[in-house]
Amino acid sequence: MNQRPSRQLGAFLHLSLDGYYCGVNGDMSFAHKAADDAEWNEFVAGNAKGGGMLVFGRTTYEMMASWWPSPMAAQMMPAVAASMNATPKAVFSRNLQSADWSNTTLVKGDAVAEMRRMKAEPGPDMVILGSGSLVTQFAEAGLIDSFQLVIDPVALGAGKALFAGVAARLNLTLTKTRVFGNGAVVLWYVPTA
Amino acid sequence: MNQRPSRQLGAFLHLSLDGYYCGVNGDMSFAHKAADDAEWNEFVAGNAKGGGMLVFGRTTYEMMASWWPSPMAAQMMPAVAASMNATPKAVFSRNLQSADWSNTTLVKGDAVAEMRRMKAEPGPDMVILGSGSLVTQFAEAGLIDSFQLVIDPVALGAGKALFAGVAARLNLTLTKTRVFGNGAVVLWYVPTA
Repeated sequence: MNQRPSRQLGAFLHLSLDGYYCGVNGDMSFAHKAADDAEWNEFVAGNAKGGGMLVFGRTTYEMMASWWPSPMAAQMMPAVAASMNATPKAVFSRNLQSADWSNTTLVKGDAVAEMRRMKAEPGPDMVILGSGSLVTQFAEAGLIDSFQLVIDPVALGAGKALFAGVAARLNLTLTKTRVFGNGAVVLWYVPTA
Repeated sequence: MNQRPSRQLGAFLHLSLDGYYCGVNGDMSFAHKAADDAEWNEFVAGNAKGGGMLVFGRTTYEMMASWWPSPMAAQMMPAVAASMNATPKAVFSRNLQSADWSNTTLVKGDAVAEMRRMKAEPGPDMVILGSGSLVTQFAEAGLIDSFQLVIDPVALGAGKALFAGVAARLNLTLTKTRVFGNGAVVLWYVPTA
């Protein structure tokens, strides 16, 4: 009998040109400047329909959980909001006591060990949205199968750097690129074998 | 009489995917992995013929000045070496006592004030190669007219971050992109007006 292929884990993040997933004080406004572009909005909406399971760290989870179930989200972006609320989700946090957003599993304990366990179990493929600290941990442990990074046309000068402190450099293979009229450049990578 | 247009100042740098122009201890080996690609080598050689004046900070200058005039460079890359040695060059440093590489001017004093003065004088356009610390200073002062950044397919996890500490975020406009088979992605930007 063939071995069951393990669940794929992708990561989707915005980065500033200087490698930060958020600025000081968690400021992510740079990632929302891209919205004035119909092609970009279509790309984002298409991503949101990806299916599978969404994975978050606590910070990104709390931001999303405060927005998508809200009446305002239902009014402004009804299709995406319905999809985000219905999709199975996991939030990794030692500190959260509960995760009340619909269809969300709270994963406590060691994030890397828990993700390794989840990937070995049957289930849908997974995508981490944002959650740069979690992405850094998982990338260092070799658990991320693909990266989709949006390079926004701005330098922040300071912030939280993706991959900060990984013990060994991470060699990647570029598999695809896409450039948008708003200046966002999307780069797809897989870890180099 | 029309005002004389000021000399253009471009910056050409390699960056890791996480925004570092060099790793810890100045390691730039990540930027040399790209060489196994004929199209890439042609691009680099074309860049080297760009004319104008080359500008360096001390660290990059010392690295280049120890290589290009050497017999080994003349043997391995004769055309590029001849061009690099003949091109007018400026090195910005408070500490260097002299700059002995052919056709090199040593610029002491405040780098930003000196570059502002040079841009206002008649002369060829200028390109900073590498020299991330100098690029950061000039960018913050609004002196860089265009950026050509090579994003290499590697995350370092630590190093010297381009634009580190700039007081205000730097908004850029993407003007051109080019993707190479070796995974290098070249992004051209100008400061957003």
